[in-house]
Amino acid sequence: MKKMKRSSRLVDMTQYLLSRPHTLIPLTTFAEQYRAAKSSISEDLAIIKEVFTSEGLGELITVTGAAGGVKYIPRAPKQQSLAFIQRICAMLGQSERILPGGYLYITDLLGEPSIMQEVGRMFASAFADRELDVVMTVETKGIPIAYATASYLNIPVVIVRRDNKVTEGSAVSINYVSGSSKRIQTMSLARRALSEEAKVLIIDDFMKAGGTIQGMMDLLKEFRATVQGVGVFVESEVPNKEEQLISDYVSLAKIAKIDQKEKRIEVLPGNYFEMEG
Amino acid sequence: MKKMKRSSRLVDMTQYLLSRPHTLIPLTTFAEQYRAAKSSISEDLAIIKEVFTSEGLGELITVTGAAGGVKYIPRAPKQQSLAFIQRICAMLGQSERILPGGYLYITDLLGEPSIMQEVGRMFASAFADRELDVVMTVETKGIPIAYATASYLNIPVVIVRRDNKVTEGSAVSINYVSGSSKRIQTMSLARRALSEEAKVLIIDDFMKAGGTIQGMMDLLKEFRATVQGVGVFVESEVPNKEEQLISDYVSLAKIAKIDQKEKRIEVLPGNYFEMEG
Repeated sequence: MKKMKRSSRLVDMTQYLLSRPHTLIPLTTFAEQYRAAKSSISEDLAIIKEVFTSEGLGELITVTGAAGGVKYIPRAPKQQSLAFIQRICAMLGQSERILPGGYLYITDLLGEPSIMQEVGRMFASAFADRELDVVMTVETKGIPIAYATASYLNIPVVIVRRDNKVTEGSAVSINYVSGSSKRIQTMSLARRALSEEAKVLIIDDFMKAGGTIQGMMDLLKEFRATVQGVGVFVESEVPNKEEQLISDYVSLAKIAKIDQKEKRIEVLPGNYFEMEG
Repeated sequence: MKKMKRSSRLVDMTQYLLSRPHTLIPLTTFAEQYRAAKSSISEDLAIIKEVFTSEGLGELITVTGAAGGVKYIPRAPKQQSLAFIQRICAMLGQSERILPGGYLYITDLLGEPSIMQEVGRMFASAFADRELDVVMTVETKGIPIAYATASYLNIPVVIVRRDNKVTEGSAVSINYVSGSSKRIQTMSLARRALSEEAKVLIIDDFMKAGGTIQGMMDLLKEFRATVQGVGVFVESEVPNKEEQLISDYVSLAKIAKIDQKEKRIEVLPGNYFEMEG
């Protein structure tokens, strides 16, 4: 690596840190890479830290001592996120999204990588301080949200299948009752997909009574894994609170009302915005 | 926005450009945002451009004139990518990956966001100069690769379903014959998921004879869409070349041989590395 000027170093360190969230980078890594004094690197990091904070990108945490270094923790500032979610709520409130059966078409939003990244950053921010090994979701629509979240947390993704594929090897299957349709369904996870006692963050695109998420939790028991958190992009309010199977979760948006006859939907920001911090 | 020093500006412009690939950003946007002269912004961009080039992140293209600005085009330098794919090939060559039926377990690699991002960057680099509206894949395992590719190309993702879900609205379905299993299967795409005459990049995790990809191409005809390119992460060599349904595609890795009895697999870099540039 050739010696770089401060201006070039700042560009390279910025991209290096952004692409390695939740990773402790020793100052010597930078010092050696740029052939610069540690004191210069510290000054660079102070500049980057200030911009990351003021632009709402997240924190740069400096760990001192022999095993020290710097760590980038992505954060989503509440006010920025609220403005973003209000735009999402307005889009979700379009009457042409109502499908037969009272379902809501959200696939187009899930197809936009930039929306997924913002959603992932919010979940990564909400669960930044939990000890996590893996993000889990069930196919299909939760997958992009799970990956976006996992990339900001720098941990792998595990996908629960609705069938049992030959390309996954031996798997553990369970039956569960989908809360809204009341039908018995199957989900399965490859034995080798998850190590025993893994610490899991469950992410999904949609939750009503929570039957699917309860199913994932039951499946995780078979792996003696523990659920450290649950995040859903959109929740739909359940008229009868007793029907709700999951109580501890983070939602980004909430369908308060769907009137199929009048073609009216009311979507509000989720409980994420009631959380502290 | 408060006035920023060059050092802070460089940090912020770097993150701004990285998060908006393939997007023309007028110099006035930066000049107004930082309350700086356009000449200073041009100097900043020259510094960023040099680092992006030397670090193999991609190009900064400057468009002059009234409608001018700067555009970040992610690129994956061939030599860097080859080193990466050789590591992937070594992982894929582990004998414990062989599943009954001669399938190969690759789900763990697909679960690593950092691997997916590198794979996505390679596809985005290979197809950077095509005119594209959307990345398409079929559920489930191609999804993370499709999103990673789409985020570097800054276009949306469309997911073909293997069933016909109520939450997608009216859909177009076709039957196709999976090349390897010779079974008739169904795939469907929501009517509203794709606009007519869209320009499509097809991405998938695995291809043998190409039946699934041929199915996607047939489905696209129903939307009068055109296929601008096909990218597969891993291809498996077909013993009889006449069985191959797809000839124009980009692969990153190639399974040259699976010996189920001897538990030996040979995996080589794909045809991506035979391409120019």
